[in-house]
Amino acid sequence: MSGPAVPTGTAHSAHRPLHLERTELTGGLWRRWRDVNRAVSLPLARQWLERAGNLDNLRIAAGETDGRYRGPVYMDSDVYKVLESAAWELQHEGDADLADFLDRTADLLERAQQDDGYLNSHYQVAEPGGRYTRLVDSHELYCAGHLMQAAVAAHRATSDTRLLGVARRLAGHLAEVFLDGAGPGLDGHPEVETALVELYRVTGEERHLALASALVERRGRGLVGRHKHGARHRQDHLPVREAPALTGHAVRALYLEAGVVDVATETGDASLLAASARRWEDMVATRTSLTGGLGSRQVGEVFGERYELPPDLSYNETCASAASIQWSWRLLLATGRARYADLIERTLLNAFAAARSDDGRTYYKGNPLQRRPDHAEAVGDPRCRDEWFFSACCPPAVTRLVGSLEHYAATVSEHAGVPTLHLQQYTSVTLACPFADGRLGLRVRTDYPWRGTVEVTVTEAPSGPWALALRIPPWSTRTRLDTPDEKGAAVTADEHGYAVLLRSWQPGDTVVLHLDLTPRLTLPHPRIDAVRGCAAVERGPLVYCFEQTDQQDGVAVDDLALSPDTVFEEVAHDDLAGVGPTVALRTRAAAVTGRHQDGLPYRTLGGTDAVDAERPVTATAVPYFQWDNRGDGAMRVWMPLLAG
Amino acid sequence: MSGPAVPTGTAHSAHRPLHLERTELTGGLWRRWRDVNRAVSLPLARQWLERAGNLDNLRIAAGETDGRYRGPVYMDSDVYKVLESAAWELQHEGDADLADFLDRTADLLERAQQDDGYLNSHYQVAEPGGRYTRLVDSHELYCAGHLMQAAVAAHRATSDTRLLGVARRLAGHLAEVFLDGAGPGLDGHPEVETALVELYRVTGEERHLALASALVERRGRGLVGRHKHGARHRQDHLPVREAPALTGHAVRALYLEAGVVDVATETGDASLLAASARRWEDMVATRTSLTGGLGSRQVGEVFGERYELPPDLSYNETCASAASIQWSWRLLLATGRARYADLIERTLLNAFAAARSDDGRTYYKGNPLQRRPDHAEAVGDPRCRDEWFFSACCPPAVTRLVGSLEHYAATVSEHAGVPTLHLQQYTSVTLACPFADGRLGLRVRTDYPWRGTVEVTVTEAPSGPWALALRIPPWSTRTRLDTPDEKGAAVTADEHGYAVLLRSWQPGDTVVLHLDLTPRLTLPHPRIDAVRGCAAVERGPLVYCFEQTDQQDGVAVDDLALSPDTVFEEVAHDDLAGVGPTVALRTRAAAVTGRHQDGLPYRTLGGTDAVDAERPVTATAVPYFQWDNRGDGAMRVWMPLLAG
Repeated sequence: MSGPAVPTGTAHSAHRPLHLERTELTGGLWRRWRDVNRAVSLPLARQWLERAGNLDNLRIAAGETDGRYRGPVYMDSDVYKVLESAAWELQHEGDADLADFLDRTADLLERAQQDDGYLNSHYQVAEPGGRYTRLVDSHELYCAGHLMQAAVAAHRATSDTRLLGVARRLAGHLAEVFLDGAGPGLDGHPEVETALVELYRVTGEERHLALASALVERRGRGLVGRHKHGARHRQDHLPVREAPALTGHAVRALYLEAGVVDVATETGDASLLAASARRWEDMVATRTSLTGGLGSRQVGEVFGERYELPPDLSYNETCASAASIQWSWRLLLATGRARYADLIERTLLNAFAAARSDDGRTYYKGNPLQRRPDHAEAVGDPRCRDEWFFSACCPPAVTRLVGSLEHYAATVSEHAGVPTLHLQQYTSVTLACPFADGRLGLRVRTDYPWRGTVEVTVTEAPSGPWALALRIPPWSTRTRLDTPDEKGAAVTADEHGYAVLLRSWQPGDTVVLHLDLTPRLTLPHPRIDAVRGCAAVERGPLVYCFEQTDQQDGVAVDDLALSPDTVFEEVAHDDLAGVGPTVALRTRAAAVTGRHQDGLPYRTLGGTDAVDAERPVTATAVPYFQWDNRGDGAMRVWMPLLAG
Repeated sequence: MSGPAVPTGTAHSAHRPLHLERTELTGGLWRRWRDVNRAVSLPLARQWLERAGNLDNLRIAAGETDGRYRGPVYMDSDVYKVLESAAWELQHEGDADLADFLDRTADLLERAQQDDGYLNSHYQVAEPGGRYTRLVDSHELYCAGHLMQAAVAAHRATSDTRLLGVARRLAGHLAEVFLDGAGPGLDGHPEVETALVELYRVTGEERHLALASALVERRGRGLVGRHKHGARHRQDHLPVREAPALTGHAVRALYLEAGVVDVATETGDASLLAASARRWEDMVATRTSLTGGLGSRQVGEVFGERYELPPDLSYNETCASAASIQWSWRLLLATGRARYADLIERTLLNAFAAARSDDGRTYYKGNPLQRRPDHAEAVGDPRCRDEWFFSACCPPAVTRLVGSLEHYAATVSEHAGVPTLHLQQYTSVTLACPFADGRLGLRVRTDYPWRGTVEVTVTEAPSGPWALALRIPPWSTRTRLDTPDEKGAAVTADEHGYAVLLRSWQPGDTVVLHLDLTPRLTLPHPRIDAVRGCAAVERGPLVYCFEQTDQQDGVAVDDLALSPDTVFEEVAHDDLAGVGPTVALRTRAAAVTGRHQDGLPYRTLGGTDAVDAERPVTATAVPYFQWDNRGDGAMRVWMPLLAG
């Protein structure tokens, strides 16, 4: 079994994903997410494909029913993303109903697909003849890309060949039009690039890779077409080899980068890879929320200016979090640098995980780091999760990533003849895979991220020396490690970010990693204007937030301030109502009452009555990703910091 | 001559505007703005009415030419606002060309108006039969309101009766439909309410007031119709007697309040007035930028949540500044409290004045308090002024207010038999008006706001005692006053905010007010998250900003930080290139270089390498309203404050 992004044998890839023979998430957060994904989210998504008309659109295209096309032009993509989610779930265990859904939908797509391979219900039903006439907005190749990804998932998960057949015919058609054809068009919404490379990895058809490469190179030359938000919004202002930074629509930009790295990896194009990696560094340094959320400006859903990261207003679209993880995963494979896994963890456990309610029913599209007490009253547009959306990209972006999560836990590499198994993410999992000249079995047991102890037991191992590499997150300042050879050794990461244990391993050998989860206060860079004078609370990989429901004595979250020498008491809950297992953090804090002057919320420095009043209170924080499961009150991540 | 908002003799109005027999702005900022208004802005606006198609739309409606309707549905309103601007300009001095424009446009409107009084080029040309079918968005009454305001201005300024005739016929038609008719409709964009009361003040027709009153009372009952932004966006969620706060689209909300106060004043409805005044206090306390700018959220152009006042992202629409001044002016007349004149001054000299370039050619629609260095590069949508807009509401909102500015300088009242002349705003002006039983002449000479000295000379006075009341702005902490009786007396304001000098005055009597313009640092209320840890520089009524062009040694504005004990050196310029007269402020400051940790713009408190580096520099600020007349570099009002 393999997951998303599996470079070919000839790809230039420092790491490779595991080809799993057996795997099971045996507990903890990832397992909780996957269980709710299967039991609640995926069935609900399938219902919505009926209610919103996505499947009917395809049935009309197939000539099976009458009716009018419903929804935005990219309705097919939701079907494909749910199909992909279903495929990953079927990889975990059999499910006749889910298998039947996959089967019947493949049927439907075969019937809807036109003779020349074209498949898009909007253009077949609502705008016949409009095919490829307004690529800047049509999402035709975007939808095709999601079909390819669904087909690749179904093939990797269930050995399906029918969806793959539909995808191949569509890809062949696209190659004829966009590779052999006269018009140098490309889609206003990148996505097909990474999908074509993945399809190439399954089919071995060089034209799939060639088309992906051509589309990547074609971008940034003003060929996308005119759009009200301009060329930058569609990443069409500079070629991908030249653009210094991510600009424009965040999800578009991030999907494009996944495709850029895929093409670079398969073609061995080091300078193309370097260009993408440079943009990743710029994004991390200047445009990334503490939660990993990306795309700070709501208008246009774009990356904003450098350091424009308002906690209340940042959009941080759920799809952008998912796309960021996909891009970072590809960079991790290409380079073997742990910093990409660090960002995956930050994004996954914070911005991404916060999108879905704990019960798996509702989603945020935008994931701000603050919600004010009057958010509903002020503009009548309460900032809460919803089951589905007119533009429903985000829910199935969650289900397809959660469905394939175990594939992001580990990678393998070989350097100077030493095979190495890298544990990239920590969760309770058992896995078995081909490794070196034999097979490797590992059992990971941990309560991470609630506790910092990670026990790794070798259950099966090839003979001869090999290395176990453990990613050491940079926030873990006092990391210790117990190995069969030594107990309690201080750990430092190597230049790539891993603690590497090279030895001959026997079944039963156990390593225990002790990560340092001491709660810490995090300060923003002074250029991040919107959170100046604030600190955030982090514990291990988790960003914390203060929700109104947890505060005592009616203290308003918006009046809370922390002291620089704040000490946190950890309060573990086995099953906090509405939230599940968690570790809350409790501390002494101050409630600050501000002053007005002449009725205005401003006052002269040094003027009379000029000191804001403070009183001591107790404040409680919970992990950000668990917010808004207990009412729609105020929430904030960045807390005012009292003068030290 | 009288200006905007002239309550009738029976209105319940604590103050009344002056009925000017003579007036002249003799120098200073107001004169500068008026001169450029007449010489540049108004001619340009007239050109744009031709280029954008506004006048052609009306010509098509009049059957004088063929063609298609161009622009948004409210194109007529721009014509009316330019007409109003022209009328106020004609009040100042004769201008054959301008008089001809007024005349020819009145002709055109007479011909375009339908037999039943209806007049709206969009519905006559582009959607015949669509009349009043989608009031939530149609702006039909909104446009009618602007026509009435133009007609009232033309009547007050030039004794015009032709425009007034068109407006009366339209108002009569509206009364038939919306007062006598069956459907309780109302416009999604308030404006006609205040206009109808003004028309009533000129015509004395009770039905004009009755319709205004009905429309005011009708709002807030869900009758506006469904809209994607919801009822709050159109102020239709709560009746105006109940709504506790301004919500939704800022310009709509503010125009509505002007109408509410107009109706309350003419009908003597104290509780209606109190409801509006309560909302004004809430707005000032929680939703007002330091510059007076209103409407903090770009999406929907709405008032945001309480204390949501991001300096970089706040919309602060120019029309909202103008509408706020109109509302505050009406509250000032109704109550006689100086705090309304205080906000007028703050808004006029900062948010409003910043909208137009010094040369009078270009405008901002949005007026943020910060511009980042990469604003153009990041999203390809440079934040600069423009000559005109597809939705061109703002430029003529500036020209019509600037054209009538002198009317906001003073008011009269009579309390316990004592007639009082209140100077509300300080600028160089001469004026003569009927007063008490005779005539009053005043000459005000000042370099305000550059200097704090205001010399008021009585040039003509009725016999007997009367009072001269001078508004004392709350920021002037050490105010002194020279009167004919005493020199250098310390001044304190009375409960309404004025220093009141009651005596018998002789021609030649002079009073000199010395306002304290010492530059000060202003701190935000701690609930204003977006500018925590910052201070703004103010001097007298002016908010200052730091522009990149004024900084030395290549220091980036975004790296500057001020010390709490900052002392400013005042640098007066008689004519700073591109800006005109100004007083710049120079001070020692720090340039702060922030640190990243693990590539992210965040760092652990107390971690290694954890101190941002500071170096001493010189920093220079100029008045905010003069910004962006010398290049498109970074600008900021709120500056990081170093620990004290």
